[in-house]
Amino acid sequence: MILFQEAYKKVLDNTFDFGDEQVAILESMGRVLAENILADRDFPPFDRATKDGIAINYFAIEDGCTRFKIEGVAAAGTPQQRLSNVNNCLEIMTGAVVPENADSVIMYEHLTIQEGWATVTKLPNKGQDIHYQGSDSPKGAVLLEPGKQISAGAINVLASVGKSEVLVKKLPKVTVISTGNELVEVHERPLPHQIRKSNSLSLKAALQKQGINAALIHLTDEKEMISKAIRKVMETSDVLMLSGGVSKGKFDFVPEVLEELGVEKVFHRVAQRPGKPFWFGLHQESRTTIFSFPGNPVSTFANYHIYFLPWLYKALRVDYPERKVVLAEPIQNKTDLTLFKQVRTFWKNGSLHAHLIVENGSGDLTSLANLNGFIRLEPRDGIYDKGELVPFIKT
Amino acid sequence: MILFQEAYKKVLDNTFDFGDEQVAILESMGRVLAENILADRDFPPFDRATKDGIAINYFAIEDGCTRFKIEGVAAAGTPQQRLSNVNNCLEIMTGAVVPENADSVIMYEHLTIQEGWATVTKLPNKGQDIHYQGSDSPKGAVLLEPGKQISAGAINVLASVGKSEVLVKKLPKVTVISTGNELVEVHERPLPHQIRKSNSLSLKAALQKQGINAALIHLTDEKEMISKAIRKVMETSDVLMLSGGVSKGKFDFVPEVLEELGVEKVFHRVAQRPGKPFWFGLHQESRTTIFSFPGNPVSTFANYHIYFLPWLYKALRVDYPERKVVLAEPIQNKTDLTLFKQVRTFWKNGSLHAHLIVENGSGDLTSLANLNGFIRLEPRDGIYDKGELVPFIKT
Repeated sequence: MILFQEAYKKVLDNTFDFGDEQVAILESMGRVLAENILADRDFPPFDRATKDGIAINYFAIEDGCTRFKIEGVAAAGTPQQRLSNVNNCLEIMTGAVVPENADSVIMYEHLTIQEGWATVTKLPNKGQDIHYQGSDSPKGAVLLEPGKQISAGAINVLASVGKSEVLVKKLPKVTVISTGNELVEVHERPLPHQIRKSNSLSLKAALQKQGINAALIHLTDEKEMISKAIRKVMETSDVLMLSGGVSKGKFDFVPEVLEELGVEKVFHRVAQRPGKPFWFGLHQESRTTIFSFPGNPVSTFANYHIYFLPWLYKALRVDYPERKVVLAEPIQNKTDLTLFKQVRTFWKNGSLHAHLIVENGSGDLTSLANLNGFIRLEPRDGIYDKGELVPFIKT
Repeated sequence: MILFQEAYKKVLDNTFDFGDEQVAILESMGRVLAENILADRDFPPFDRATKDGIAINYFAIEDGCTRFKIEGVAAAGTPQQRLSNVNNCLEIMTGAVVPENADSVIMYEHLTIQEGWATVTKLPNKGQDIHYQGSDSPKGAVLLEPGKQISAGAINVLASVGKSEVLVKKLPKVTVISTGNELVEVHERPLPHQIRKSNSLSLKAALQKQGINAALIHLTDEKEMISKAIRKVMETSDVLMLSGGVSKGKFDFVPEVLEELGVEKVFHRVAQRPGKPFWFGLHQESRTTIFSFPGNPVSTFANYHIYFLPWLYKALRVDYPERKVVLAEPIQNKTDLTLFKQVRTFWKNGSLHAHLIVENGSGDLTSLANLNGFIRLEPRDGIYDKGELVPFIKT
């Protein structure tokens, strides 16, 4: 059995790159960018009117002119025009190109317009209401860098520079294997000694949130069958996630099978609760990482968030945010284990506070529906006081 | 022009229910539950061993017995057994049913096993290492209630009670319409006076994050065409989202068209920046809500998060979290408008702090890639000081 900090470090020390892939722009949402995104032209690409009104040459204003003959209309989406006389004006619409020899825009609110003439009711400043070419970013500027997680705002930038396809980090191929003869399908009616499969579905749902479409496989407690299935999965998957089968039971064939298949055990059992019988290993040949979680729902759910998510983020080269929350009530950890307690957080005065969820041991399924994270408590003689900051694992 | 608070209230006053629908369990992830989820049996459904070891009757221990003949094995997934003699034991595996006349489990770590006999090396407590039938939830108990947003943890609960199909709140059907003759497709090479469509894609990506698969339509600035398209969309969509075409320009036909089609204008123009020329209305007949956002990227992006998301959450009967963040630097708002400033947040001592993003007016596209929210600043004579809490709109 190893300490939590050691186990955590070992998991993070064993990440590798899954490579890159091209995806369509809308599929890149939430993914990690793997290329530099450059401005393919100036932004804005031309001197752009930001108001509806008239475009004038400020020289006329300096010359005392406040009444302008309207030569025509500059609409958005039409090529640049030119004032034939700098004492005239063009009506101009938001988004249109400012005429070649105009330099200021006056909005309708500061004009009266009558019979083809615009009269200025409020004198403009030179250069007003124009968004100048290249003032956001000159052509060639780096707008987004690799490692950025693509947000809806970034989609706007990608679209603007014409990236209909985007190079992103590949996500790992994950297979979730459930084991246990007591498990039946969700739609089935279990016999009195049976229960429905739930951990593997919960893992699949959590992976779905990360954009990963995991494969699900169920295996009964037969060593031969488990061995054959795992060997096959390792050929195609980057990650093998197991739930159950790693205790000391007679039918817990998983650790034995993994060893026989040449998987290197990095560790088995961590001084933590829940989630103690966690088995973590690597199959060097197929570059498959194995997260073998304990069978009970809270243990599996906790270890997925405690270990797998930071591992995934590190593999994708994205910072995993280290959060802390304020304890809303005192708590103690007089055990010699690192405890992960289920909490429900709430916002108060700009801080995130955590209430403990009343639970009934690590087998308590129903508490899972209410938690939105775990707090981490190292062993301590004294208490963890109300108001103290503790590490928080968001779920 | 109306004040922000008034506009916000009017938007929230105009929500309606989109109804419910059945979806497969894994598709229910992130959706809002629309039914009570009951325990279809006791949880756990039987007295369940939580350790691998032996099951005994504590009477034997009280009687001084520390050495037990092993009668057989109780594996997970097999029917309940019975000790033929209460001085004997059964080996038992985690997840197995505790034998009828046993009441305590002793784990392997506290045993030595030899030639069919188990010798206790550490005396047990009566009833230990058993997760008792119904101790989490008795049959019939309400495990989840309508209005809950379904998390990966909740998926575990749904699976456990056999909900392969789940009743959830329907999401609105949304159509995003972009207008403007200056716009070309993302994969196209724009002429000098043209730009690529980006707002509609960014909105689609943001909606995707809410589980909404929006339809995209582009219309050029022709009144007839806009009118025809909007009429058609209103027949099938719950929400019509427009970007651009709501300024005072000659080709901004949208407000006029909406009015002609019988859409009730709730308001047009809000005393805020960015996002001032926001048009909000309702078509009573088709029950379509119209969010007509200004054309520039930051305005559209801001108003989507400021107005549409709280509207959506309210329509789905889910609390929209009101967040506040700590200002990392002083700022002022000496205008008479409600300002929404782009920020990037970071965690520090359990609080969320916000740095202002240097921006170049409301047309600055590139800042969109870096923000992760907006802070809201009402007009004020004095400054907003570093360390002050201000309302935060997460993006």
